Amino acid sequence: MNYNYEHDLNKGISVDCVIFGFDFEKLKVLVIRRKPVENISESLVSLPGDLIFNDENLDQAAQRVLKELTDLENIYLEQLGAFGDLDRLSKPSDIAWLRSNRAQPEARVITVAYYALVNLNAFDPKPSNFAESVSWEPVEDIKSMAFDHLEIFNKAREELYRKLKIQPIGFNLLPKKFTLSQLHKLYEAIVGRELDKRNFRRKMIKLEIVKKLDEKQKGVPHKPSNFYEFHVENYKRLVNKGFDNFGF
Amino acid sequence: MNYNYEHDLNKGISVDCVIFGFDFEKLKVLVIRRKPVENISESLVSLPGDLIFNDENLDQAAQRVLKELTDLENIYLEQLGAFGDLDRLSKPSDIAWLRSNRAQPEARVITVAYYALVNLNAFDPKPSNFAESVSWEPVEDIKSMAFDHLEIFNKAREELYRKLKIQPIGFNLLPKKFTLSQLHKLYEAIVGRELDKRNFRRKMIKLEIVKKLDEKQKGVPHKPSNFYEFHVENYKRLVNKGFDNFGF
Repeated sequence: MNYNYEHDLNKGISVDCVIFGFDFEKLKVLVIRRKPVENISESLVSLPGDLIFNDENLDQAAQRVLKELTDLENIYLEQLGAFGDLDRLSKPSDIAWLRSNRAQPEARVITVAYYALVNLNAFDPKPSNFAESVSWEPVEDIKSMAFDHLEIFNKAREELYRKLKIQPIGFNLLPKKFTLSQLHKLYEAIVGRELDKRNFRRKMIKLEIVKKLDEKQKGVPHKPSNFYEFHVENYKRLVNKGFDNFGF
Repeated sequence: MNYNYEHDLNKGISVDCVIFGFDFEKLKVLVIRRKPVENISESLVSLPGDLIFNDENLDQAAQRVLKELTDLENIYLEQLGAFGDLDRLSKPSDIAWLRSNRAQPEARVITVAYYALVNLNAFDPKPSNFAESVSWEPVEDIKSMAFDHLEIFNKAREELYRKLKIQPIGFNLLPKKFTLSQLHKLYEAIVGRELDKRNFRRKMIKLEIVKKLDEKQKGVPHKPSNFYEFHVENYKRLVNKGFDNFGF
């Protein structure tokens, strides 16, 4: 797409996206490495994001950022809120980078943060214009980030955990077909502690939000497990009854 | 306070506040009526709010709006998120009103919404500069509002209900001393349905988050009830244990 950046960009508002994925072992987050800037050796990772255009609403801006990176449509997306601290863009390396990229690098920018859940096996992420590279990092390895992105990332992890207790959103991180072991590992990765395997399976089956398929894993070095899929109809039935306890 | 509005205001970002109160009977919301504008007879209520200043962060802007209305400090305040739809300021009456009040009435403004919980018995709200009057309205009477404020208000009600299940924030709506009947009525007002009185009292007492005081109501036409207060220490102990089920 071609935009008249000077004319169409809203210079005061950006969106930033915390994109979560799961590789069957660890919960991961998609981060970008900025293109190097003269005299700045520090290379902090950051969240993918962009200024918004004046003809798109906030969700559309976030979807555009996601689409550019993942080429996927209909991604699970939730707004985390707005971040507008006065010093959010004030690290020296951040200022240097903004200077090399923006018309008014000192302008105050308030960002609206989102978190997204994707099946990371479904695509190869592509770095956007401003990025040198893009990669999936285990969430527990993220100790520092550019701008105020660590604060946004931490809020996103909290929100993911909180939301998982009331809505089984974890299925968005898995392929359509998965084993109960994979689902169990995913929940452990999000809640950040071990969960008794037998209790976990029992609760999932009792809730009837997973449907057993007539299909097993192939070519695995252990006894092949059965595949399941998310039982959307049963889940909707529970929601209509006001049920919201999906936590462990 | 005197501001150089032209210089210090950020014309692209506002805050709006959904302020909840409880008069021992009904859950209420503080709304303002705008000063009349020529040729516009429609008089929709709106949420108190303002553009932000460039030297304050988002929470500070919301606190300033609250302070001007209530003269209270340390109000319970939570951010609801950002609202940035393209048509959010486009009703004819809204445009006319903005024209009479703002330097660039057609500029796109994204608002960051908050909800606040106050003890409405503790103060008399004062209308701000732009408002003709300010009043407490029962939440169930609110059917339409200016701008996108009805959407913000509905989101705030949902969030209040959701939050009450995991955190006993209702105490912020009560005076320091209250009866269990008053607390019960408050919960009914927020969840929007009857709650069995005996179960409610039993759960509150079992959680040990209310402390019985050696003091009874005076001058009431019925048998005076005992006063209670919120047991902050016990509540903190529960939170430290990871407990978060305060719902009914």
